[in-house]
Order: sequence, then C-alpha cells, then structure tokens
Amino acid sequence: MKELTEQYLMEAIEDSKPFASSGNVNMNIPNTDETLKDLLGVTIITMDQECYCAGDYMECVPMQSTSKIIGLMLALQDFGKDRVFQAVGMEPMGDFFNSISQLESYDTSKPFNPMINAGAIAVAALIKGQSVEKRFERYLNFLKKITSHEELWMSEEVYEAEKANGARNRSLAYFMQSTGTLVTDVEEALDLYFRMNAVMMNCEDFARVGLFLARGGRAPHTEERLIPPHHLRTVKAIMMTSGMYNSSGHYAVEAGIPCKSGVSGSIIGAIPGRMGIGVIGPAIDEKGNSTAGGALIKKLSQDLGLNMFGIENIEKER
Amino acid sequence: MKELTEQYLMEAIEDSKPFASSGNVNMNIPNTDETLKDLLGVTIITMDQECYCAGDYMECVPMQSTSKIIGLMLALQDFGKDRVFQAVGMEPMGDFFNSISQLESYDTSKPFNPMINAGAIAVAALIKGQSVEKRFERYLNFLKKITSHEELWMSEEVYEAEKANGARNRSLAYFMQSTGTLVTDVEEALDLYFRMNAVMMNCEDFARVGLFLARGGRAPHTEERLIPPHHLRTVKAIMMTSGMYNSSGHYAVEAGIPCKSGVSGSIIGAIPGRMGIGVIGPAIDEKGNSTAGGALIKKLSQDLGLNMFGIENIEKER
Amino acid sequence: MKELTEQYLMEAIEDSKPFASSGNVNMNIPNTDETLKDLLGVTIITMDQECYCAGDYMECVPMQSTSKIIGLMLALQDFGKDRVFQAVGMEPMGDFFNSISQLESYDTSKPFNPMINAGAIAVAALIKGQSVEKRFERYLNFLKKITSHEELWMSEEVYEAEKANGARNRSLAYFMQSTGTLVTDVEEALDLYFRMNAVMMNCEDFARVGLFLARGGRAPHTEERLIPPHHLRTVKAIMMTSGMYNSSGHYAVEAGIPCKSGVSGSIIGAIPGRMGIGVIGPAIDEKGNSTAGGALIKKLSQDLGLNMFGIENIEKER
Amino acid sequence: MKELTEQYLMEAIEDSKPFASSGNVNMNIPNTDETLKDLLGVTIITMDQECYCAGDYMECVPMQSTSKIIGLMLALQDFGKDRVFQAVGMEPMGDFFNSISQLESYDTSKPFNPMINAGAIAVAALIKGQSVEKRFERYLNFLKKITSHEELWMSEEVYEAEKANGARNRSLAYFMQSTGTLVTDVEEALDLYFRMNAVMMNCEDFARVGLFLARGGRAPHTEERLIPPHHLRTVKAIMMTSGMYNSSGHYAVEAGIPCKSGVSGSIIGAIPGRMGIGVIGPAIDEKGNSTAGGALIKKLSQDLGLNMFGIENIEKER
Repeated sequence: MKELTEQYLMEAIEDSKPFASSGNVNMNIPNTDETLKDLLGVTIITMDQECYCAGDYMECVPMQSTSKIIGLMLALQDFGKDRVFQAVGMEPMGDFFNSISQLESYDTSKPFNPMINAGAIAVAALIKGQSVEKRFERYLNFLKKITSHEELWMSEEVYEAEKANGARNRSLAYFMQSTGTLVTDVEEALDLYFRMNAVMMNCEDFARVGLFLARGGRAPHTEERLIPPHHLRTVKAIMMTSGMYNSSGHYAVEAGIPCKSGVSGSIIGAIPGRMGIGVIGPAIDEKGNSTAGGALIKKLSQDLGLNMFGIENIEKER
Repeated sequence: MKELTEQYLMEAIEDSKPFASSGNVNMNIPNTDETLKDLLGVTIITMDQECYCAGDYMECVPMQSTSKIIGLMLALQDFGKDRVFQAVGMEPMGDFFNSISQLESYDTSKPFNPMINAGAIAVAALIKGQSVEKRFERYLNFLKKITSHEELWMSEEVYEAEKANGARNRSLAYFMQSTGTLVTDVEEALDLYFRMNAVMMNCEDFARVGLFLARGGRAPHTEERLIPPHHLRTVKAIMMTSGMYNSSGHYAVEAGIPCKSGVSGSIIGAIPGRMGIGVIGPAIDEKGNSTAGGALIKKLSQDLGLNMFGIENIEKER
Repeated sequence: MKELTEQYLMEAIEDSKPFASSGNVNMNIPNTDETLKDLLGVTIITMDQECYCAGDYMECVPMQSTSKIIGLMLALQDFGKDRVFQAVGMEPMGDFFNSISQLESYDTSKPFNPMINAGAIAVAALIKGQSVEKRFERYLNFLKKITSHEELWMSEEVYEAEKANGARNRSLAYFMQSTGTLVTDVEEALDLYFRMNAVMMNCEDFARVGLFLARGGRAPHTEERLIPPHHLRTVKAIMMTSGMYNSSGHYAVEAGIPCKSGVSGSIIGAIPGRMGIGVIGPAIDEKGNSTAGGALIKKLSQDLGLNMFGIENIEKER
Repeated sequence: MKELTEQYLMEAIEDSKPFASSGNVNMNIPNTDETLKDLLGVTIITMDQECYCAGDYMECVPMQSTSKIIGLMLALQDFGKDRVFQAVGMEPMGDFFNSISQLESYDTSKPFNPMINAGAIAVAALIKGQSVEKRFERYLNFLKKITSHEELWMSEEVYEAEKANGARNRSLAYFMQSTGTLVTDVEEALDLYFRMNAVMMNCEDFARVGLFLARGGRAPHTEERLIPPHHLRTVKAIMMTSGMYNSSGHYAVEAGIPCKSGVSGSIIGAIPGRMGIGVIGPAIDEKGNSTAGGALIKKLSQDLGLNMFGIENIEKER
C-alpha cells in the first residue's frame, strides 16, 4: 500500500489520464468541447480535514447526477426514511439510468432507486419549500454548508440546456404522474431537478460532499451535525449498489467505495470514517461514468487500501 | 451498541422469531413442512475464532443459493477473475433470481451476475474436473476445508428433487447454450448445480463460510491461505450488491453486510475483518429471503454496529 | 346464414346485450355513468346505401380511439404511405395500447403501429395545417364529408377531460421527442390528438366511416373519391391486425372483419365491398373493447357470413 | 390487373429475383449453400384445380415454420378450438419468433400464438398419438392427403440438424414446463416439432396446402371434407395477423393475403375461395421471410387483385 501524499496523487493522475481517450465529452453541457477531454483532477480530504489535491482540481463542472445524493439527503431530512421510500425504491436496477420500461414492468411503478433519473425526480418532488425558487434555495444553502463554499452558484446556461433537452426526463415524470407515483406538479419537480443538476462545483466541493458523508453529517468547521448519521448510512449504501449507473456492480468489485458519478465526468467518493474524494474527468463512457476518473478511483482504492470489502487495512492494523 | 454474548443472541432470536409468520416454508425441499416455519437459529464466529450460537442452530438445511458463493470462489480460483467475468457479469439486476428476459433483452446474453440462477449455472459450468462427480467432489472438499467440517454431505433426496423441479433452470441453461454463453454440456452443468444446492449445512457451517470470507481466505485451524484475499473481496462486493435476491438494496441499507441467502431460509453474512454469521430460518418471503432470519441480520447489524456504511464503530474507536 | 333486416338486427341486439354485464363504463369520459352500461345500438349501411339500425343507435359517444383511423387516412392523404410509415410502423404489438416499454425496447423507437396511442400521436403530428385549430378543422371537415353529417361537433368537456387526464399520452409523446421520433411541437400534437378523440358520433356516423372504407373512399352522395382506394386498403389491413387493441387476433379469428374500437364503447366495422357497421355499447372489457358490442360484431359476422376468412359467402355464390 | 398465365408468372419471377440479393440463405439447414440463393419458384392452383407454375418450382425445401399451420389444423381437429386456445393464444406479438421474454412478461405464460416457436411447440404437444412416431405418422398422412402427394418424406438430416441446433426451442419448451403451460413430456414434444419441420416439400406441395385452406378443407381429388371450414377460417385469420413472423403487419398491408413463411424460404398463401400459392426462395431477411419470395407474393397480390382488403376485384365484378 502507498501513502497518501500530493506527490502520489500527481503520479496517480498521470497513470489514469490515458483512459480519457476511450471516453467522450458530453456535448449537451454548454461550454463543453473536446478540449476538456483530457482534464483530470482530484481532491481528497481526510477525517482530520487534511486536503490533498492534484491535476485539474480547480476546474468547475455542473453536478449533474451527483446532485441526486444531495436531493436524497434533503428529502430524508424533510420526511424521514419511511416516507421517502414510499416514493422511490432502494433496489439496484440492471438498466440505463433513464430507462422507462422498468416503470411499466413492475406491479408498483415506483422507480427502482433514487440514483436513476425517475427516482431522483420523485425525490426532488418531495423537497420542501413554497416555490421552486425557495426549494432550490434550500438545496443550494444545504450544499453551501456541506462544502463550506459560500460562492456555489447555478449556471443559468446549464439549467436552460437541461430544460431544453429534458424530453426524456419529462416523459419519465409524466409517466409517474399517470401512475400516481408523482402527485405534485410535474413541471415544478422537473424545474427543481434541472436546477439541482446545474450547480457548478470543483474537485474540493465534490470531496467535501464525500467527506460530509464519510464523517456522518457534521459541518466542516463548526462540527454541527446537519443530518443524523443513519440517513447518511442509507445514502452511502445506495451509492454502493447504484451510484455508478449500471456499472455500479463493477465499481463495488473494483473500487469497493460508495461513489456517485455524473455525466459531467464528476465522481464523489465517501469512505466511511476515512475520507471524501472528489474527481473531475469530463470524458465519459457509454454508461455515463468518467473513464479516467473511474480508473483513478480504482487505482486510489487499490493503492491506499480503501476497498471496504478488503481486509488489507484491517490486517495492517492488527 | 450491545455486546456480543450468547445471552444477547438468545434475546435477538426471540425478538426476530415473530417475523417468521409473514413467510412461507419452501415446500419443494424434501422433508420440509410447516413445522419448520418457526425455527430460527444463529451462529456467529469472530476473527479470533470465538463461537456464539443461539436458537435452533443445530438444524441442517440444504445450501440452495448460498452455494452460489462457493461456486464463485472455486471458479475464481480455477480461472481467475478475467475469465470468470467473461462468462458472467457483476452488475446487480432488478429482477427475480430466475428471470430469463434479461438474457434476451441485452446485447450480450451474459447473465447479470453470479448470484442469479443463470449466472450461477454459467459459473458451475466453469468448475474444473473430469466428470460431474469429480467436479462435485472438489466442491465438497473445498467446502469441508472452509468449514473444517469433515462430515458435510449431499442429500440425495434434495438433489433428486432439484433435478425433478429443474425445468426453469434447464430453460435458463439451454437459453445460454443457444446464445453461445454456455459452451459446455448443459445437462452436466445443471447436474453439478443441483448437487451443489443439495449439500446440507447447519448454522456453524454457514458462519464458517462467512468467517472464511471475512478473514480473507485462511483455513480455520491451519491458517493456510486457500484462496487469495482479492478474490474474496470480489465475492463480498457481489454479495453486497446482489446477494439477497432482489432485496439486496434493501439489505445493503438496513444491514450493510455482505450476505447471501438461499430459499432454504439460510443466510451467510461476512463482515470483513470482524466476523462470520450463519442463520437458518426456513420461512421465506416472496423474494426468497428468510423473513425471521432477515430481521435477525438487521437487528444484529444495528445492535452490534456491523453496518459497513455506518461510522459508529469507527467513532467508538476514536 | 340469416338475412339482414331490422327485425334480425333487433334480435341480435337482444342476444348481445347480456354481455354488457361483464364490462365497465369508462368513467373518465364526462357525463358518463353506470346508467349507460346497458346501452347497445347498431347501424349497418350496405354498398347501395341501404341503412339498417336497431337498439340505442341514436346515442352519441366520443370517438376516442376510433379517431385513429381518420387521422391515419388524413396523414396518408397529406404525405403518402412512405412518409407516414417512416414515422410509425405497421406491425401488430402484443401489448396494451398505452405501453411505453416497446418504444424503449427496440432499436428503432418508432411506435409499432398507428392504432396504439404512441402511433396515433405520431400520426396526428403529421396532419397538415397552420395551427392546431386549422388542423383540427381539416380533420372535422374530412369527417363531415365521409359521414355526410354536417353537424358533427367536438365536446369541449370531453376534450378538457382528455387533456386533464393526459399524463400517459404526454409521457409517450415526450418519449418520442427524446428519441427524435416526434420532431414537431409535442403539446400541439397532443392537443390535436385530444380534440380528435372528443368528436361526438352516433351509430350511423360510425357506420358511415366503415362504409367509406368498404367502398374505397367515395363520398356518400356525390360519389366523389376523397381518397385513393389503396390508402384505404392499408387502413383496413391495419384495422384487421391491430384495430381491436390487444384482442385484435381474437377478433380476426372470431369476426374476421376489419374493425376499430374506442374506449367509449364504439366500434367501426368495414367489410370491403359489402358494408359499413357502427356499434355503440359503453361497457368495455379490460382491454378497451365494448363487451356487448364485440359480441354483436361476432354474431353479425357469423349470421351474415361476413368473416373474410370464411368461404360461406363464396360457396353460396358458386 | 393482369391475367394469371404461366407467361405472366415467368415475368413475375424475373421481376422478383433481384430481391434475393438482399437476403441470406439459412445455413443451419443441411445441404444448403450459397448456390441456392438465387432460386425462386412458384406454383398457383386455382379453385378449379388449374395449376400454374414457373421458375424453380421443382425444388424441395424443408417445411420449417410452414409446418406450424399443419400442426394447428391437426390439433384443432383433435381437440377443438376451445382446448387448443387454452394452450396457446391467438394474438399477434410484436417480437421475434423465438422470443422467450413474452412468456415471462405476462400473467399468463401462454405463448402469444401458434405461429411463434413456443406456441407451435405447445400445439405439437397436443397432437394425438401413442408415441412420437405414431404422432408424426398422423401428421405426415394428413399432409399427404392435403397435398395428394403420397411420396412426401422427412429428411433425417434436417431432423438431426434441428435437434442438434435446438437449444433455443428446448429453452422455450422447458420454460413452458416450468410454468405449467406444457404438461406433456418436453423432449417428446420437441422431437415431434423437429420432425414436422423436416418434411421436404416443393412449390406444388406448398400451393396444395394453400388451396386446401382456400377451399375450406376438401381433399384435392376426392372432394372429401377432411376438416370443417370453421377451423380453416381460424387458421387463415391467424396467418393474416401472425403468419409472416414480425413482418406480418407489413404483409397484411402490402399483400393482404393469409400467408405462412418458413426460414427455408418457403411461403404458403391461401386466398379464401380463390387460390393456393406455393413459393420457394431460400434467401431470407433478418425476420425470417424469403426476400424474393415476399416480393413475388406482393407483386402477385397487386397484379392479380388478390388483396383481401382491396375492392378491385369486387368493383370489377359489379
């Protein structure tokens, strides 16, 4: 096993970069082009708030699907586990993140889990607030506290693009309305969902979210508990089984870390009691995961003994 | 958190027993009747070989699907990870364990993972040996070493019943033959699979399998490494995402322990670096998991701080 | 075989009425209640314009899915067969009329045929006109010519109800937008589709549509050809394979008549070169077909030798 | 419209032959190679037993799926419509002929119709007889009477090849056993099914089957009624909705003739009260239909006014 240093991180970045070539940058995101393809950045923050970063860690990308775990935390906070999982399941699904067939195939038309689009829309519909604006404000404030980054902002351009390209999500949402799964206003739920996806974050922001989960819900500096640890246990478990789209099983085996990825090439990793990881690598594979970023996560797990199913770390300690 | 004692285990059994009433005993297993419905037993063995047991821990049931993890270990040992996962995937699947549609729906007709029947048959087809008898002998010997239980035996009756009721598994296997996924003799692969399911085990045996996984592959007394730890990491990760049929997500959230269940009501739990758990509770729910046994696993996780996504244990240590 | 007389029709109505008890009235249609359950009316018009009617033939119901064949005729007229069947398939589908899975399951996300909702929406999107109002006006004028019923009107109430309950159709339409199948404005296509469904017709109107198809496209009195016969051949073939929802195969066997049904309990029958049939019986089965109306259609086919796959009529003539 | 003469048929063959190039010969059939690709033959027999033939009409190919309509006739004869359609549905299915998903997707695991493999196996299982040999003997004798071809024979080579490549059909059959749809011996049902597919026929034989259906069940020379006309009406209706694999809708529109095709490139056409058509053209498309043969059928329908949904013929007569 290797030691976590910035020197090591730089080497890990260099080793992982070549995997970018097998991916493609998601061109639906505004201001995105092929020049982003070779970017790769990482930030790791340990339990004692030590921060390590390397590569293009200063870059900003929209949250995209990484917003799904923030939405889930807020909904759990607002309504508790029972109510949230009346609206959405917690089972992994062997299909693409925007599949609609599953909504039709099963007796219950409840989305399989909160990490697929239908599930995340159903969760967004739960977040409390008197208007879409208020609800999004709560979301953004929560995120600012978690990351202790007061300047977090939503890209209007990304939000508009999400809305303009939102036909599939709209189809999922109206389907859920037709089956009674979604009972609130469909366009409002979608609007909130699109905004959530459009918040811009850098590697440290992503790592802070990971750390928040890893530490059981305490604010970075004040140590205030913002959310009870048992809710975060739920979120991490769902990240492990469903966080990496339909490569989640692959990542459970190869990295063994609760992760959540987004089609902007971002990955949040949360190793309970150890560290938070934030990765950005815009070239994604056909399932939606950053190719270089995914390679980096697997390398970090291997080199630093982060795999939760391994015993290297435990053996070392004995 | 509570302390692990036999007194505690007895209380946990009493608390979990009432859940048996919501399940049903699988009547396809010979010598099985309603009188087994209220049985519930547990054995826990810790890293330092301390053994705790309570309830009907002396009962024997056939392995059924718990055999899938043994088959997977042997195949990984025989062929390595790359070859095994050419034959079978590692993604969780949101469908019943005997689903055939998934084999048809995807470009690759590779079964989703080794925990569903199709996948386990594909894995069984890999296990080396010159005849079905020899291959099964290797399986049984491996199991005897893991459990250090020399008297382990296969029930002819259960084997015959498996074979007689094997139409669905036969359908899965011939489907895989038709797509070129299964290239060896179909009836031989099925025969071995049926035998593997028919090995009779008690709670200690199941717990020993869990401990073997938790300890990274050493034989109980000799401390000989029978299989490299990285293969067991793979097995535990797959148990977490897919081990409890299509309630695996639920168990990842509610227990957070790599588990594998069988329709005989057995459950194997493997907490890396901590302990192995064996449970028997024959009343199963419609997904195939022991109702009382599942309740017990969740209670143990909660009371003893076993949830891998929690930080209670870590916090305690700090 | 029996002779077609009003006396015979009255008896046929009486024989078929009891089947109403096994169906249910579609309560989503405004001004619809259980009192409509026992209604049953029929009008038959032969090639030489003889008109026979019996039962509640004066009742009016909304067209609902019977509008699908009118939309298809107009689109064929506007764009020709090649263009129309670029937008929609012509294969029967073994699934419910509002299924969305099929759109996702196949390489092409083209709806299976124009008789299912997704297909009919795709067809409605083709109908020419500068605005939804103009396009609907063309639809209504075409229908007035076919039926020579100048007073045909659209029920605002039914239209509003269609729109209010339109979540599933909206989901289908946005799905088609997401795959590029639907390239025009989604809400406009839906609006036109909802209006088309809301035109109120009685048994004679429905029979006139059938006759128009049976006679190869001539206006009732002027004998003007409104549409070339080969387009109507296409429509009748699709009615035979897909016109009665996912009971179309059953009706092909038991009646052998090109038919189209609607969830208002209406059925249009078109026997090439022989007659048009219009039936209203609001109690429908779970597939969407009038139970008493369907029984009547089968009885008429049997008694009058209308089954196109039979040779009674041919033998008689020899 | 054109007149039916051998001269016309020769021209029609020449016009259709080029379509062979877009198809491929099914190499699973023994003694089949690329040299067969350009073969195209046709025989038409009218109600008054006039026989017209052209092209390679003397060639012999195995029945393959055209056997499905013979099996259905025998089963209807043996058990009547009610019993047969307890075992198999009569609805067209929008999927490939060997799909297994549909058996799993629906509440009833009854195959959709007798024209898909699962349905035909379920029908074959019904055919009476004390052994597979006796049951096949009945089948062959029935076929000899229909075609008045005493020398009809089964190719052992084709039968053996069917059996050797029968994994998918075996999978379908065991699936049906697992759901209780198939209650007789699976291997026997398959054995009979494979034999039925292996009977060798030429264009005249195929045309005779078509004529038998078109004439309502009379033996060619004796005029003995072998099967009641209402059973043949059922068979022709199912041919129209499901006889051309999942291009049946296309052929209903483009030809409007009850047809059944086989992957040997054979097509049987049956126009009620008019004629039987037999076509052989071994190059098939990816759905299983002869490309040149299908083009020929559509041309014949167009030129000779055979489309049942058209009124050319009727108009001409008036």
